[in-house]
Amino acid sequence: MATIYNRLAGRDLGRIAALSDGIFAFAMTLLVLEIRIPERADVHSEAELWAGLVALAPRIVTWLMSLMTLGIFWLGQQTQLGHLARADRNLSWLYFVFLAVITAFPFSTRLLAEYFTFRVAFFIYWGNILLAGLALLACLIYEERAGLMREDVTPEVKHALGRRIVFAQALYAVGAALGLMDVAWGVGFIILVQLNYAIAPRLPFLYKV
Amino acid sequence: MATIYNRLAGRDLGRIAALSDGIFAFAMTLLVLEIRIPERADVHSEAELWAGLVALAPRIVTWLMSLMTLGIFWLGQQTQLGHLARADRNLSWLYFVFLAVITAFPFSTRLLAEYFTFRVAFFIYWGNILLAGLALLACLIYEERAGLMREDVTPEVKHALGRRIVFAQALYAVGAALGLMDVAWGVGFIILVQLNYAIAPRLPFLYKV
Amino acid sequence: MATIYNRLAGRDLGRIAALSDGIFAFAMTLLVLEIRIPERADVHSEAELWAGLVALAPRIVTWLMSLMTLGIFWLGQQTQLGHLARADRNLSWLYFVFLAVITAFPFSTRLLAEYFTFRVAFFIYWGNILLAGLALLACLIYEERAGLMREDVTPEVKHALGRRIVFAQALYAVGAALGLMDVAWGVGFIILVQLNYAIAPRLPFLYKV
Amino acid sequence: MATIYNRLAGRDLGRIAALSDGIFAFAMTLLVLEIRIPERADVHSEAELWAGLVALAPRIVTWLMSLMTLGIFWLGQQTQLGHLARADRNLSWLYFVFLAVITAFPFSTRLLAEYFTFRVAFFIYWGNILLAGLALLACLIYEERAGLMREDVTPEVKHALGRRIVFAQALYAVGAALGLMDVAWGVGFIILVQLNYAIAPRLPFLYKV
Repeated sequence: MATIYNRLAGRDLGRIAALSDGIFAFAMTLLVLEIRIPERADVHSEAELWAGLVALAPRIVTWLMSLMTLGIFWLGQQTQLGHLARADRNLSWLYFVFLAVITAFPFSTRLLAEYFTFRVAFFIYWGNILLAGLALLACLIYEERAGLMREDVTPEVKHALGRRIVFAQALYAVGAALGLMDVAWGVGFIILVQLNYAIAPRLPFLYKV
Repeated sequence: MATIYNRLAGRDLGRIAALSDGIFAFAMTLLVLEIRIPERADVHSEAELWAGLVALAPRIVTWLMSLMTLGIFWLGQQTQLGHLARADRNLSWLYFVFLAVITAFPFSTRLLAEYFTFRVAFFIYWGNILLAGLALLACLIYEERAGLMREDVTPEVKHALGRRIVFAQALYAVGAALGLMDVAWGVGFIILVQLNYAIAPRLPFLYKV
Repeated sequence: MATIYNRLAGRDLGRIAALSDGIFAFAMTLLVLEIRIPERADVHSEAELWAGLVALAPRIVTWLMSLMTLGIFWLGQQTQLGHLARADRNLSWLYFVFLAVITAFPFSTRLLAEYFTFRVAFFIYWGNILLAGLALLACLIYEERAGLMREDVTPEVKHALGRRIVFAQALYAVGAALGLMDVAWGVGFIILVQLNYAIAPRLPFLYKV
Repeated sequence: MATIYNRLAGRDLGRIAALSDGIFAFAMTLLVLEIRIPERADVHSEAELWAGLVALAPRIVTWLMSLMTLGIFWLGQQTQLGHLARADRNLSWLYFVFLAVITAFPFSTRLLAEYFTFRVAFFIYWGNILLAGLALLACLIYEERAGLMREDVTPEVKHALGRRIVFAQALYAVGAALGLMDVAWGVGFIILVQLNYAIAPRLPFLYKV
């Protein structure tokens, strides 16, 4: 009986992972559609095409930022799922909510790319990051309360998983505060935070969070 | 021989699950494309951008409703697949039909978002939900008749699986009747039914259905 | 050593299956985007919306036909993969070609939906079906020659797998011949062939092919 | 403990593979959307439709080239993943970068299709291939240094994996140099290189690289 239960639970975990990979794959690929190529009618020479591509810079910056956002959340969710022994219906719903928030990134990315200097666009983008973090945190809290984690997961690891989300969101909130003053500063700070997570995961201090 | 058969059957179950996850992932992510951002030429200030976003409310409501619809059917199908010991060619076809109905949601969602006050649009949306429920029920009935369920699935569980679909469709039908009078009431009722399924799965009465 | 080899081969089979499921899921969901909703500016009443939807009939017919086409090839490929013991690099390439042909269906479907009465559009659609069948047949022939099938697959089964593809393509070719006279007849015949494969797989005569 | 670790690592490998398959599936299917069908208003006869389709030739050539590019990288990554015993967080990030580069192909393909005779477009396309190759090479180097490969992978195999990437990129660089003179020559040479990899993997000389 226990065997069957575990098999089922494992299947559920697999379904969550599979839906997640599909959504991340699709959202990542959709992002590039926002980088529209220069209008054919406006371009008559190599130089004009190059100029048209350079003018895409804000969209390319937003694209790279969103790719990193998705990468960080993909890895974060993967790490969390990796500590689970099994899943249940409620957790499936919570991860579904997390994934629904992830599907909003192509929208918020497009908005920010089109309205790069607008605070409203920036805060909606930050709100998207915040919601994704909160959803992931809700999954984590539920996993602990419902006892879904593997037995070998120590309290230290559990604590570290939560602290990692809270710390990252605190850094993003600093970026949001900077964005209140100037959107470009806010975007720049968020990109720095992300590069930090992406490139320097071996620094002892940041590796822990 | 039995081993080979089971392995093959398991593989088929995996293929159904994988196709399903791909389709749900894609349909979920497509939905957000319906929330078009305000036209750049119409927006000259933060206030105008905010007003443009507030004007997207009907699309956002329809988006959230469709996300919940997809979530409910994703979980419903996952639960059903979780009770199977194996699949066969006919069942693959039946689930393919179910998934084809799911791929229609981006269409019916777009129609309802664009024609929010039109009864025709609302009934096509409801028809989409109805067809998805019927397809899932057809899968369930076939699974029982063809003896594809795991041996440890009791008659009570089988009964509960079917009752759950019929009960949900009955609630959606009430929503459709309300929509006959006023589309906003119909949409509101359907959202309440969905929130019920999504948020309150622990209430003893509803957990059973 | 043999164990490692089998594990690797199994992984390859899994990758082929996963790429296939992704492509079928995506192609299926893309198809519905071809059914564009009536222009908001043209619609002032429920009756006009209904009329606008009825005018979508050719697109809906083409959509259903393409869904069935994809379903038949999804199941056909699944059956073929189910008989394999392992895969190799060449087979991966052959299935990649098959999948590339599958990704062309959203194009040929769009073409046929837009140019429903044009022979050119119909023959490109039929050509897409033909290429998909030939690619699947090439996979099958290679599987036999390279000895990739499971040991318990009898010569009868191998023969049946090939005959199934050839027979179906022969029926599609009849549809193409009818389309030479009138496209509507050709489309109608192809839909009949597909319904046959989808709905009546238990008839002894057709089940064998 | 070792068992749990391996299981986790295997799960990570599975997640990388699943995300990859999703992204390749999606990118492949997106490519076909670039082949826009002739405008309905411009076409009044079968001959005009045929002429309109013939005019799509540059887009179809670019489409086929990109399909082959994706196929080659899909197989290349699959081969590399097949030699791994386990994955870690850093490797997940490196593959994420590789996949992000892959998601750029629909953009660079669209650019080349629209600006077929422009050197800028051709070099951005080549740059995309180069970046994909470098990312794959970075993954390979990290895998060796971090000791993530299976124990039965000999130094010869490791060397061959790296040489394969470097050799292919050298051939692409020749194509780029030819493109400096004439874009059509560059595209033609790259297609020849790809056909070589796709069709002739059994030639002793090329099979080794």
